[in-house]
Amino acid sequence: MATRREVNIGLISSVAAAAATAAFAQKQHLIDLPPPAMAGGKSLMQSLKDRRSTRAYSDQALSNQILSDLLWAAWGVNRPEHDGRTAPHWRDVYALDIYLAMADAVWRFEPKSHKVIFHMDGDLRAQTTSGQPFVATAPLNLVYAFDMSKLAGTTETEAIAAAAACVAMVGENVYLYCASAGLATVFRQSVPGEKLARTLKLPPSQIIQFAQTVGHSQI
Amino acid sequence: MATRREVNIGLISSVAAAAATAAFAQKQHLIDLPPPAMAGGKSLMQSLKDRRSTRAYSDQALSNQILSDLLWAAWGVNRPEHDGRTAPHWRDVYALDIYLAMADAVWRFEPKSHKVIFHMDGDLRAQTTSGQPFVATAPLNLVYAFDMSKLAGTTETEAIAAAAACVAMVGENVYLYCASAGLATVFRQSVPGEKLARTLKLPPSQIIQFAQTVGHSQI
Repeated sequence: MATRREVNIGLISSVAAAAATAAFAQKQHLIDLPPPAMAGGKSLMQSLKDRRSTRAYSDQALSNQILSDLLWAAWGVNRPEHDGRTAPHWRDVYALDIYLAMADAVWRFEPKSHKVIFHMDGDLRAQTTSGQPFVATAPLNLVYAFDMSKLAGTTETEAIAAAAACVAMVGENVYLYCASAGLATVFRQSVPGEKLARTLKLPPSQIIQFAQTVGHSQI
Repeated sequence: MATRREVNIGLISSVAAAAATAAFAQKQHLIDLPPPAMAGGKSLMQSLKDRRSTRAYSDQALSNQILSDLLWAAWGVNRPEHDGRTAPHWRDVYALDIYLAMADAVWRFEPKSHKVIFHMDGDLRAQTTSGQPFVATAPLNLVYAFDMSKLAGTTETEAIAAAAACVAMVGENVYLYCASAGLATVFRQSVPGEKLARTLKLPPSQIIQFAQTVGHSQI
């Protein structure tokens, strides 16, 4: 039978091991974003003046600070008391997931914790386009997945329009953030949505209508 | 036969009369907006922080300066050299018309000249909703009409999504402008689109999926 001291040592070792495992898992499965920088950047009107679509990118990676600011601007929590967001959601439904196809892996943005969660290994950037070559080497492609099963009480046409509208408002936020931060972006409907949804192992109710490339402009 | 002098006088009178008629018509048929104010307002990030939907409005009218700023932010020309706009358009197609249902009449925004053109007499605000009472007394309801005949080479589903996306990006610009200017707005899918398109005498190819109420928040 173990003495109390031996039991205590055992407990401490287990706790230490669990903490080490959690730290390892966290390192692999999360990008722990810094808080979004709310100061600086351009005025809204200047950002609107500088909004444009770009189709030539360098392969320079985006910093974690830029990722944080970009994702908060896109679909971040702006009124935490009731999970209000920077873009509207449809009635009381949160049906949008934003996936990030980057060189190392595919990640998913979690707005409430403002974290980026590991989703799948591999460079899937080229698979987010139906044929635009710049997509494959730009550092980030946002893939907008919308859960149609959450849009009850509408016609199919209304649901398609509602999903597109929710996504596009997030997309316009990304446009304006990129204009403010001197980054390049383009919102794209040329996406092999059904095939990409299967590759990403999304549930059948989630559809992909649009994606958006983000990076530094090629000089 | 008229002498040259008589002909000249006749010509001058005709020109004067035409000018007077044009001035009269212009007074009735145009709201000649002041240039949009590019200075002032909030930063983009602060505008995103303050973005929200509002469903209680005062009946206070909007000034022509606010109308100018709002419409430029929504869908104005930001790169005149190639008619670039504050929100993207679909491929090379400009298929969106923005109508303004106000207390006095219905008007149409003309982005290239940055003017508001008379469209139809009457207060049609209540007819832009399928049952939200605040719509009828808020000073402005933007009605987004999209010409589906201009979206060639897509499936019907893709066309519906493309139209919704184009409109929603403009709608998000309106949200952010209102957040920056301390105004209230809500983007609405609850619109009797087919009936409203007939009332506005739009061509059959133009569909209405969305509207957006703008005004001062009810205190």
